[in-house]
Amino acid sequence: MALLDNLKWRYATKAYDSTKKVDQTDINKIIEAARLAPTSSGLQQFRVIDISDQELKEKIVPIAMDQHNIAQCSHLLVFVAWDKYTEERIDNIYNYITDQRGLPRGRFNSYTNKLKALYLKQTPEENFAHTARQAYIGLGIALAQAAELKVDSTPMEGFDNDALDELLDLRSKGLRSVVLMAIGYRDTANDWLASMKKVRVPKENFDIECK
Amino acid sequence: MALLDNLKWRYATKAYDSTKKVDQTDINKIIEAARLAPTSSGLQQFRVIDISDQELKEKIVPIAMDQHNIAQCSHLLVFVAWDKYTEERIDNIYNYITDQRGLPRGRFNSYTNKLKALYLKQTPEENFAHTARQAYIGLGIALAQAAELKVDSTPMEGFDNDALDELLDLRSKGLRSVVLMAIGYRDTANDWLASMKKVRVPKENFDIECK
Repeated sequence: MALLDNLKWRYATKAYDSTKKVDQTDINKIIEAARLAPTSSGLQQFRVIDISDQELKEKIVPIAMDQHNIAQCSHLLVFVAWDKYTEERIDNIYNYITDQRGLPRGRFNSYTNKLKALYLKQTPEENFAHTARQAYIGLGIALAQAAELKVDSTPMEGFDNDALDELLDLRSKGLRSVVLMAIGYRDTANDWLASMKKVRVPKENFDIECK
Repeated sequence: MALLDNLKWRYATKAYDSTKKVDQTDINKIIEAARLAPTSSGLQQFRVIDISDQELKEKIVPIAMDQHNIAQCSHLLVFVAWDKYTEERIDNIYNYITDQRGLPRGRFNSYTNKLKALYLKQTPEENFAHTARQAYIGLGIALAQAAELKVDSTPMEGFDNDALDELLDLRSKGLRSVVLMAIGYRDTANDWLASMKKVRVPKENFDIECK
């Protein structure tokens, strides 16, 4: 099925059938799609944490505005991003890129020096505002991948970031939580949104004429 | 072709064949994919501007770090987002949603009141940090759509946002530029990146174990 049809099929699932687990092969494809997502300067500023442990999912419910679909879902993906840019992070990625391409390390120094000049003078909060945006590219692509597999999902922002960072011990790894993606199979009978029409602003209001 | 294969096929095209134009039907599908992207609370905080006018594209090159693929590409999509949240914007979207679903207006008042309480006390910059993130979901999905159509594209952040906002007169419409997506057909002979291996952090470093 084409992407446009998949996008029409998907919706932000509000209730999952907790008896149905998503095959790990499908979960891995969804994570792989996020991994292949482009990021600013190819730095891959974000990572994905795959949580299927029931106890841990249940611990996240109260710090996520009691959204019970987190406990019901099969897997919860936590998109996390670098808390800040560092010289070492930029160098590590670019050393890996040049190694993989059989190029001498330092081949992109003039470019990475510009990146360092730009990012290292910013505050960590400014850095994180940028790294977090990259995670949303991955989220968009992961949602598309789930829909292609006919697996339901829910993008979720409503949670206490600091509390989740603490629960998952993210800060010590130089990471911060950005956005969640619940994955599972819909419980149609108990999902008020399942039968509702998908509504988007009309085409003519979305594609803005310029000149 | 499956999404994962499309993601492997695509790359951030650095040089376009300016003699090749992308059919408007394909451009419309890419914009439609972005329109169908999910957004926080379904507010659709972003829009897409489709620029194919050569003169206008050339005006954008100098305010986008002289990236000449903007002049070479067939179409340039500008992802723009609400400059801030307002009561009217939230109400307009929710009135449209309830109308489309045949529900009484105000059906989601308890929810929209929470959104208003959250967003209207924030600064416009805080609001925009949130609306801009939503545009990146759309960007991710639009990039996937272009790849499905075997149309090349380039996500681009390196531009002077204020200058582009002025050129496109965005602020008067309550919008701000977020990210660009050039669309066209690659000029393989002149694109240094076209033949390079796509590099991503290895799976084991991307999917972080938690507990």
